Amino acid sequence: MRVLFYDTTLRDGTQGEGVYFSVQDKLRIVRKLDLLGIDYIEGGWPGANPKDWEFYQEAAKLRLNHAKLAAFGSTRRANHRPEDDKTLNDLLATKTPVVTIFGKSWDLHAQEVLRVSLAENLQIIEDSVRYLHSNQREVVYDAEHFFDGYKSNPDYALETLRAAIRGGASTVVLCDTNGGTMPLEVVEILKTVQTQVPVQLGVHFHNDSGTAVASSIMAVQTGAVHVQGTFNGYGERCGNANLSSIIPTLILKLGYDAGVKENLTQLTEVSRYISELANLHHDERQPYVGGSAFAHKAGTHVDAILKNPLSLEHIRSEQVGNKRRFLLSDQAGRSTILSKVREIVPNTKKDDPHVLALTNHLKQLENSGYQFEAADASFDLLIKKAFGLFEKAFTLEGFRLIVEKRGDQPVLAEATIKVGVGDEQEITAAEGDGPVNALDSAIRKALLRFYPEIADVGLVDYKVRVLDEDRGTASKVRVLIESSDGTNSWGTVGVSENIIEASWEALVDSIEYGILLKKAQRDNHSAKPKRSSNEN
Amino acid sequence: MRVLFYDTTLRDGTQGEGVYFSVQDKLRIVRKLDLLGIDYIEGGWPGANPKDWEFYQEAAKLRLNHAKLAAFGSTRRANHRPEDDKTLNDLLATKTPVVTIFGKSWDLHAQEVLRVSLAENLQIIEDSVRYLHSNQREVVYDAEHFFDGYKSNPDYALETLRAAIRGGASTVVLCDTNGGTMPLEVVEILKTVQTQVPVQLGVHFHNDSGTAVASSIMAVQTGAVHVQGTFNGYGERCGNANLSSIIPTLILKLGYDAGVKENLTQLTEVSRYISELANLHHDERQPYVGGSAFAHKAGTHVDAILKNPLSLEHIRSEQVGNKRRFLLSDQAGRSTILSKVREIVPNTKKDDPHVLALTNHLKQLENSGYQFEAADASFDLLIKKAFGLFEKAFTLEGFRLIVEKRGDQPVLAEATIKVGVGDEQEITAAEGDGPVNALDSAIRKALLRFYPEIADVGLVDYKVRVLDEDRGTASKVRVLIESSDGTNSWGTVGVSENIIEASWEALVDSIEYGILLKKAQRDNHSAKPKRSSNEN
Repeated sequence: MRVLFYDTTLRDGTQGEGVYFSVQDKLRIVRKLDLLGIDYIEGGWPGANPKDWEFYQEAAKLRLNHAKLAAFGSTRRANHRPEDDKTLNDLLATKTPVVTIFGKSWDLHAQEVLRVSLAENLQIIEDSVRYLHSNQREVVYDAEHFFDGYKSNPDYALETLRAAIRGGASTVVLCDTNGGTMPLEVVEILKTVQTQVPVQLGVHFHNDSGTAVASSIMAVQTGAVHVQGTFNGYGERCGNANLSSIIPTLILKLGYDAGVKENLTQLTEVSRYISELANLHHDERQPYVGGSAFAHKAGTHVDAILKNPLSLEHIRSEQVGNKRRFLLSDQAGRSTILSKVREIVPNTKKDDPHVLALTNHLKQLENSGYQFEAADASFDLLIKKAFGLFEKAFTLEGFRLIVEKRGDQPVLAEATIKVGVGDEQEITAAEGDGPVNALDSAIRKALLRFYPEIADVGLVDYKVRVLDEDRGTASKVRVLIESSDGTNSWGTVGVSENIIEASWEALVDSIEYGILLKKAQRDNHSAKPKRSSNEN
Repeated sequence: MRVLFYDTTLRDGTQGEGVYFSVQDKLRIVRKLDLLGIDYIEGGWPGANPKDWEFYQEAAKLRLNHAKLAAFGSTRRANHRPEDDKTLNDLLATKTPVVTIFGKSWDLHAQEVLRVSLAENLQIIEDSVRYLHSNQREVVYDAEHFFDGYKSNPDYALETLRAAIRGGASTVVLCDTNGGTMPLEVVEILKTVQTQVPVQLGVHFHNDSGTAVASSIMAVQTGAVHVQGTFNGYGERCGNANLSSIIPTLILKLGYDAGVKENLTQLTEVSRYISELANLHHDERQPYVGGSAFAHKAGTHVDAILKNPLSLEHIRSEQVGNKRRFLLSDQAGRSTILSKVREIVPNTKKDDPHVLALTNHLKQLENSGYQFEAADASFDLLIKKAFGLFEKAFTLEGFRLIVEKRGDQPVLAEATIKVGVGDEQEITAAEGDGPVNALDSAIRKALLRFYPEIADVGLVDYKVRVLDEDRGTASKVRVLIESSDGTNSWGTVGVSENIIEASWEALVDSIEYGILLKKAQRDNHSAKPKRSSNEN
């Protein structure tokens, strides 16, 4: 059996407290979800805010491999013809192949919230769907509050679905909008709906009862073929059904087929990538994709695992790209490290003492808060350093940053820097929008005379994450920097209690890596950058 | 129908990554859970470590109102008489009224892990239980890996339960130890067990498939009367079934009776209390007890809630001691703002020109990157400013920050600040781990003479988010600060291209709010802070 996954991280997910994506973040996530094999990606509600407009304009230029992009909105307003309705026309203007609209299934809601008659509500649903469908769109109809509506007035709730089908909806999605429906109720109601309404059924659950994942899975087992949810379960209140849990359960444990099936080993990485872009702590206790999901603490359990892994792991961690960890005797990823090393120093042996030294060093760094998932250039430099293949491009003699504010005047930031390259020295200064920007400008200015090739290198992304937040302003911060020369891009990392020190570390790695890259390109036209600018 | 809740936060919960309780913490939690009305509290595994011994010695002195304390351990070792078995005798030595032991249900496990014959395993279970029972203990038998064992060899798995019953177990608990059993399987297997084994049945689920809460609820609906779980879902790997979700669902939504029923309004507080003692971030997205569980962001949703709360809340937040919150965001409407204004200026009319001005001002701020979701104190000050109710506590004459690095030495940060209060001025300086920490120390130091009451105010959380990341280090940042005086806590926000300016803005709001709060507390004992430290 095949199941379709419909991701709404970028729309319903952003209703979650603290969840925010820039237009660029959204575009990156679309590319990532497409490569993973997600079937539908809902990007936003055009017209609700200018950011979503900009997103759809940019998204129209993407060439997606597999996914269909969907725009989300509501049925038309009462007393408007569909052709004159702004929401529906905005949806068409996005030019997405799929349009998803929600309408009322609950008789009380139609009357109290929309303030229309029950007959009128059916008409609104039917002609809204028909207008979109007649404009060659695949229409997904989200039946808002379906389960509550069904419990209040089953016949009417079913009528609203039939209206959407008459209008031409290809999929009708039963939504549990307030998250209160119990899983066994879901199964019962879905069984009835299936006998009454001949259409492809989908489901959309919220997690207010802690049962959204179970309800989604049980709905598929009962016959639904389209599942809406979000990565990491982002969403309003307690969140939406977590696709990072639903996808592997359906594929690995229940034998369903899906577009993501071939790429399931990327699941953990995609989930972490989305946490990073949302700038939220990754939920490490999440099933399948959390850092603790295959972490074993109890001594007896570690013994049992070594005797028979399946005794305490319901699936193999590699199947979702995650890793088993023993918390007391950490045997962390020596083979992973080895495979990275071999990209730079081919034919390195597993017992090479440099590998052991690097492994220990990495463990120390990770314990102090470093993360190399988004900082492959820093990791590259670490390997080169461990194997004695690294030569410093410059030394820092020192820098001084002055940040000053007088009364209501804006803050001024100014950096002075002194560097040495070979026997020569250079001292210079620069101003900036903030201290890190001033420092970045000053260091590039100082080095330009020695390395003119870095003229086209610049920062494209700068992220700050507070690690031990409970220590207030004295907490440790991790800075991630993404740099680009217009063709290649690379990530670097720095960690310190001082945000300037952490930024400096990441800046230095970024420039060192940029210089090495340019040198490799000059020396050898076949030099391979670590990542393309598309972050594929 | 009555259901019994068995809490294992203090035993299985501590298998979770990062979960640690001192003996004192454990005793406090026992008292708290007892007052809440939990039926059984499992405190640890005596003999497994000295801390658990100490705990049971101290716990024996507690006078509990309702709960029965349980000690946890395993069946006896092979080739030992029960009377000579250290584990069983340790359990008796705790003098708890209840003893819980686990044994093997899975034929393979008995043979591979215990290395005993299948018949011998039955004997071990039976005489271990009998020994404890004959010493006047209520014995709970945890059937480890029951569901996997049942799927592998149903007859033998049932035999192990019968062995425990013959020994005198009062409750037999079906455990899904690796968390892989699907909810519908749970229901099927439980139905069969019920017809075969005449005893009070319990369940114990792990969350590796994200379905532990659903499985627990469905098991009770199928006939189980004893539910094991942990608060906040702490536990090994992805955690145990979350009692903070299961309890209100069974009582409020499915009509079950339980010892906690009368005290359900304490649920959120107890859950937060346990997070505090575990020194872990409270999972704010948790059903029922999370800070986001009743938080509404979308403007359309806020309207709907005001028209009919049940449209987007499956229960009333007060029922579990939680609170509804309207999040101020780019998606929030005017009615959200008005409801916030009325908390400070009661009886404000919807068409009050101040409200319109405030709404417009907020939109501008939000467009420039401000977010007030986690910054209610900044929002408070904005309202007071809009209504002319705000008086500045101090003026900034200026500050200068110097951040310096020499060679490989660590970065030094030093702040000089000059403030005015009334006709007086104060200039002072402070060092810090980083620029913001130095600035924070300096401003507090400068103001202490004028406002000694802020001596106990400090930052407890500091978050930085880069807004338009594609501009590299020149991008805009949003700083969120959480401050506390030990009793109350409040959030403030600042936005700028300069991280120092943004931090300064949030710092100033934090201090202004702290001073106002202290003043209100002095002036009026009934002053209501926006949030208590319990964040109810």
